[in-house]
Amino acid sequence: MTPSAISHEELAEAWPVLSLEERLEGSALLSRVDAEELFLRLDSHQQAELLMAFQPAERRAWIRLLPPDDAADLVQEVESEARAGLLEQLDDQTRREVVALLAYAEDAAGGLMNPRFARLRPDMSVDAAILYLRRQTREHVESIYYAYVLDAGQKLLGVVSLRELMTAAPTKVVRDVMTADPLSVPEDMDQEQVSHLFAEHNLMALPVVDAEGRMKGIVSVDDIVDVVREEATEDIQKLGAMEALGAPYLEVGFRAMIKKRGGWLSALFIGEMLTATAMGHFEHEIEKAVVLAMFVPLIISSGGNSGSQAATLIVRSLALRELRLRDWLRVLGRELRSGLTLGAWLGAIGFLRVMTWQHAGFYDYGPHYLLVAATVWLSLIGVVLFGTLAGSMLPFVLRRVGFDPATSSAPFVATLVDVTGIVIYFEVASLILRGTLL
Amino acid sequence: MTPSAISHEELAEAWPVLSLEERLEGSALLSRVDAEELFLRLDSHQQAELLMAFQPAERRAWIRLLPPDDAADLVQEVESEARAGLLEQLDDQTRREVVALLAYAEDAAGGLMNPRFARLRPDMSVDAAILYLRRQTREHVESIYYAYVLDAGQKLLGVVSLRELMTAAPTKVVRDVMTADPLSVPEDMDQEQVSHLFAEHNLMALPVVDAEGRMKGIVSVDDIVDVVREEATEDIQKLGAMEALGAPYLEVGFRAMIKKRGGWLSALFIGEMLTATAMGHFEHEIEKAVVLAMFVPLIISSGGNSGSQAATLIVRSLALRELRLRDWLRVLGRELRSGLTLGAWLGAIGFLRVMTWQHAGFYDYGPHYLLVAATVWLSLIGVVLFGTLAGSMLPFVLRRVGFDPATSSAPFVATLVDVTGIVIYFEVASLILRGTLL
Repeated sequence: MTPSAISHEELAEAWPVLSLEERLEGSALLSRVDAEELFLRLDSHQQAELLMAFQPAERRAWIRLLPPDDAADLVQEVESEARAGLLEQLDDQTRREVVALLAYAEDAAGGLMNPRFARLRPDMSVDAAILYLRRQTREHVESIYYAYVLDAGQKLLGVVSLRELMTAAPTKVVRDVMTADPLSVPEDMDQEQVSHLFAEHNLMALPVVDAEGRMKGIVSVDDIVDVVREEATEDIQKLGAMEALGAPYLEVGFRAMIKKRGGWLSALFIGEMLTATAMGHFEHEIEKAVVLAMFVPLIISSGGNSGSQAATLIVRSLALRELRLRDWLRVLGRELRSGLTLGAWLGAIGFLRVMTWQHAGFYDYGPHYLLVAATVWLSLIGVVLFGTLAGSMLPFVLRRVGFDPATSSAPFVATLVDVTGIVIYFEVASLILRGTLL
Repeated sequence: MTPSAISHEELAEAWPVLSLEERLEGSALLSRVDAEELFLRLDSHQQAELLMAFQPAERRAWIRLLPPDDAADLVQEVESEARAGLLEQLDDQTRREVVALLAYAEDAAGGLMNPRFARLRPDMSVDAAILYLRRQTREHVESIYYAYVLDAGQKLLGVVSLRELMTAAPTKVVRDVMTADPLSVPEDMDQEQVSHLFAEHNLMALPVVDAEGRMKGIVSVDDIVDVVREEATEDIQKLGAMEALGAPYLEVGFRAMIKKRGGWLSALFIGEMLTATAMGHFEHEIEKAVVLAMFVPLIISSGGNSGSQAATLIVRSLALRELRLRDWLRVLGRELRSGLTLGAWLGAIGFLRVMTWQHAGFYDYGPHYLLVAATVWLSLIGVVLFGTLAGSMLPFVLRRVGFDPATSSAPFVATLVDVTGIVIYFEVASLILRGTLL
């Protein structure tokens, strides 16, 4: 590729799948301005990686491109020994702001906010306020479209949009035009909760205040897009039975990846060992009627599948706040009906399968094939019902005891249901086949 | 609850879990202004439901509260016979705009955009532009913070922020201040792609243009929050082996719910029937060594679990564009190592399980227990490796042939792996146990 053949857009597109060497080579091909564009488009993890690959002396110009909230995110991405060195590269004001931001948890409102926002006094005239906002613009305030009205003690009194100021009579004062007591969030509110407030109220920005009501910064809707995406990724990875990765697939090292995946796999494996115990318990039944063993995978997987479905559905509804903890009984009622219906339906298919194979001569289930078919049908009703109920109630139980409902992954539910499925199946079989096959 | 005891915020909070009757009762308790606040906070599905519960004559005032893009979303939510009646309730201009919007697919940029945006001519002076924007504010333009510069044929020439105008010298013309040729999207671009552009470029708004470059509307970042959430919900539900619901859990009718879930469950059940066929194939092995049947659920579920993990991981990475189709070979290499490592690890736990139970006297696996333990270990390496590879490659295959990668749900992968798992297990068993147990 010749130097002129790559744009910063193309490079940013390809970024996630490039190695660090390719990234450095690629950015060296860009003009300074294009390289800066590229840098600003990267996420903080990628910015940190690139920055640390530069000579220490070169880092200053790059980190100073960033507003305080982004600089804080970047600093959080580097090894703790390197942080002090990076902070020194910042100008005094930004360093103070970044250090303050670093005190917040990354996933709290305080860790998300930008400490630079447009501020006004309540007794300013509308005209003075507009002039004042135009001046604040030059001081790198991220947005002047919403201005926050503070008293002398920095307490939040109200909010006013630039639009409201521009359409108001110039003789009025800010206090007359502002919306008093606007919605605000405490510094330590979890980012997921913050994102729900944005969605519910269709907000563009939310002020963050401390315990005394003093305004500390603003969270903007464009930060929330990232939060929503991040939280969904975490939930999806948990639902896939692994720890949340916290970084793109190709950027996670092999050892870290094995640890994040192996932990859950081992736990599930140890849980699933109970199936061997359960099967051992029914050893004599299997010896007498080997035909019963044929259907074990089919029957227990149906329980697992219906359970995974139900769990996924409830986990997402809880995350979106379409369901609350107190709705569990209503869900139980619905899932009872769903489980019975789905179980009866799958059971009917299973029944037909045995009958068809027998009559078509594909397989000989022996003289009692009708009883075998009935065992399959009845077990499926029980197993699918149990799977559906377990899958739908597990997320409620997890939330109730303070865990993330998304932990009720498809494999977790399947493991839970497999053992019970074996017991249900063989109990139904002894009931129906006693005196004939068993 | 007494009338004064409920606020529109509380009612909006509780909304998702209320019945239609409770919703109507609840909103009747609010003042007109509060009821309007509540209405504006509902999503279009809920707005439509409430509106259609009102008398036809009452509907006008409510639907006219909405900007054209929200009105179009609402109209799309009602039965097609009722649409014409609702459109008649709108004023002429809005009706024209809504009808134009209804021509777009709901999940395309055109279906997402607001046709009302602030527009400027390139040769206006900066001062005239600010004055003109203040006037447009009164015409219900959603945002005046970004103004779009159009030529006489409505073609998009540039974009300028109110902030840039306010800090520019008043004698300049708009053309000098604007950013020429801004990023724009075609009307039919899929909303998921639009949301990626927002994330990559940290945008607040994006102009939508037709094939001739004429500007049709703007998409704002606050609409994108909903898109990101919606797309994640769809992916999560597909990963849970069901069709995307498209509405909150409690708002989907029983029949519709059974259809969305029963379809995939039946398909998986029919696929899983192959396990009965595979087990039938090894009937004689099971008869000779019933002990082999004990480990079937444990071994095949380990393949399913590791496959689900891998599939979930790759599906999300593809959705976030951290991985592209062309990265499949790189992923294959990584997953080969992961599968072998995880398989060897789980196999070792399985080996230890058999040895411990034998020596502790929990269960007697016969004189050849060492060979049984070895069979379990080796099969697990094969099954987990196969699961990991199948799970990680299936999403690539699905995308390659034009399907949604999220279709490779945990249960789908598990079903795929179960049959192969049985074959691998019994083949390894015949290899190791021939001459002893078999």
